[in-house]
Amino acid sequence: MCPSPTNHGHSRGYVIPIGGAEEKINNPDILKKFVELCGGKDANIVIIPTASKLEDTGERYEKLFEELGAGYTYSLPITKRTDAKNEDLLQHLEEATGIFITGGNQLRLSTILGGTPVAQTIRRQNAQGTHVAGTSAGAAIISQHMIIGGSTGIVPTEDGVNLAPGLGLNNQLVIDQHFNQRNRLSRLLSAVSYNPFLIGIGLDEDTAAFINADNVFEVVGSGSVTVIDPSDCDHSSMAEARRGDAITIVNLKLHILSAGSHFDINNKVANLD
Amino acid sequence: MCPSPTNHGHSRGYVIPIGGAEEKINNPDILKKFVELCGGKDANIVIIPTASKLEDTGERYEKLFEELGAGYTYSLPITKRTDAKNEDLLQHLEEATGIFITGGNQLRLSTILGGTPVAQTIRRQNAQGTHVAGTSAGAAIISQHMIIGGSTGIVPTEDGVNLAPGLGLNNQLVIDQHFNQRNRLSRLLSAVSYNPFLIGIGLDEDTAAFINADNVFEVVGSGSVTVIDPSDCDHSSMAEARRGDAITIVNLKLHILSAGSHFDINNKVANLD
Repeated sequence: MCPSPTNHGHSRGYVIPIGGAEEKINNPDILKKFVELCGGKDANIVIIPTASKLEDTGERYEKLFEELGAGYTYSLPITKRTDAKNEDLLQHLEEATGIFITGGNQLRLSTILGGTPVAQTIRRQNAQGTHVAGTSAGAAIISQHMIIGGSTGIVPTEDGVNLAPGLGLNNQLVIDQHFNQRNRLSRLLSAVSYNPFLIGIGLDEDTAAFINADNVFEVVGSGSVTVIDPSDCDHSSMAEARRGDAITIVNLKLHILSAGSHFDINNKVANLD
Repeated sequence: MCPSPTNHGHSRGYVIPIGGAEEKINNPDILKKFVELCGGKDANIVIIPTASKLEDTGERYEKLFEELGAGYTYSLPITKRTDAKNEDLLQHLEEATGIFITGGNQLRLSTILGGTPVAQTIRRQNAQGTHVAGTSAGAAIISQHMIIGGSTGIVPTEDGVNLAPGLGLNNQLVIDQHFNQRNRLSRLLSAVSYNPFLIGIGLDEDTAAFINADNVFEVVGSGSVTVIDPSDCDHSSMAEARRGDAITIVNLKLHILSAGSHFDINNKVANLD
């Protein structure tokens, strides 16, 4: 699904995938920046804890965001598809200045929210200026093509990644998280080599890409964002490969970006000022 | 150390780093190609088992190469620096059509052979046409700058790799092995970002780069060779990074090459015919 169109006069809100395990106490740079972006004391942050099976995940983020200065926070109690049609909950989303999707299992997000009014409202609100952040599973669900599993390691394989449809707040990226910590280059390269129109971004833990309305992202946090840009790729053997075969794929561009670096997704250029 | 100069009329022998665990029984493509290159029934293959602490490593390769059709094989009994001056052993090296360096610990190779007549003879013989292959530790020692340890994972770090001087049969590459199996991109990227004149090649197990006299290599074996070409890199934060900092390094070229692919090291071009 492509991002919802923005209406005249509206600018799309930030889309902020976070690589999981973002710092919450000592240097909570990512969460702090998110709260500021959403308006600080005027922020109205709605949390979607659906990916998590822990009962206190939503409440924990409510407190965290309040400690970081958010004026109002509310965790939506959505644990099944019927919850995702509840008018009261939709009302909360419509009034939010920021939406935060927690970690857990991205298949819970897609199976519970996919195609529901909640998913539609998140998409529409983002197109109208509401910022949407997601950590771990919440980062994966952001893109149109979502990684739900795959091989660890470096080199891509024919069956190296499993994809499912995500929320589609961005349709140019395929996003992976816990990237360095869980050795996930293999599955990101596999995703990119399935169809080299995608740009792969691998987010380390405690690392976020703040993607603005112009499709330029800034890296925030203590780790790196690994960018795989296949736009110059002029050969891939993926289509001919059988299970277990080594893959050939040439002329990929690789950037490793740390805090303060920018990447222009439309023009595919890293910018370091 | 740079490769020894070739003399008039001589063409440099192949240099063949192998990623370790090369297939020995079922599809021994790499070892078979090496034997053929060295002359088949006229081959005279000298084995250097010094990296290994197992007593039968040399003998095992003698038998393997004979089973694959090599006319003559001999494992040099070098376990200490004084062995590496033995005139009889040097004579064997001078008569070899191929030299094979086994796996084990690359620091055993560099500490026992470094600066000895055996090392000098290997370098000189290669410049005069003798083919030199090395697997695992034997692959690492081939290059001028040898990886002896480092971090696992994907992203480079300030202290992500330990280098030591190698044999210097090639001075444009830094070579890593067991690459996908042991998640060694982090240390290869660290090596390349220390000084981007180096091209990094990461060899999977059972995978070799057959580098010819024109500095073009062909991939042989069941895995991939990951090539990191930093020649267009226009920014690296390596010099400013403190221990533990995330690194920024942009515009690296990444190729994943499987059997049959070629890479031209001088011109930095992957060639797939």
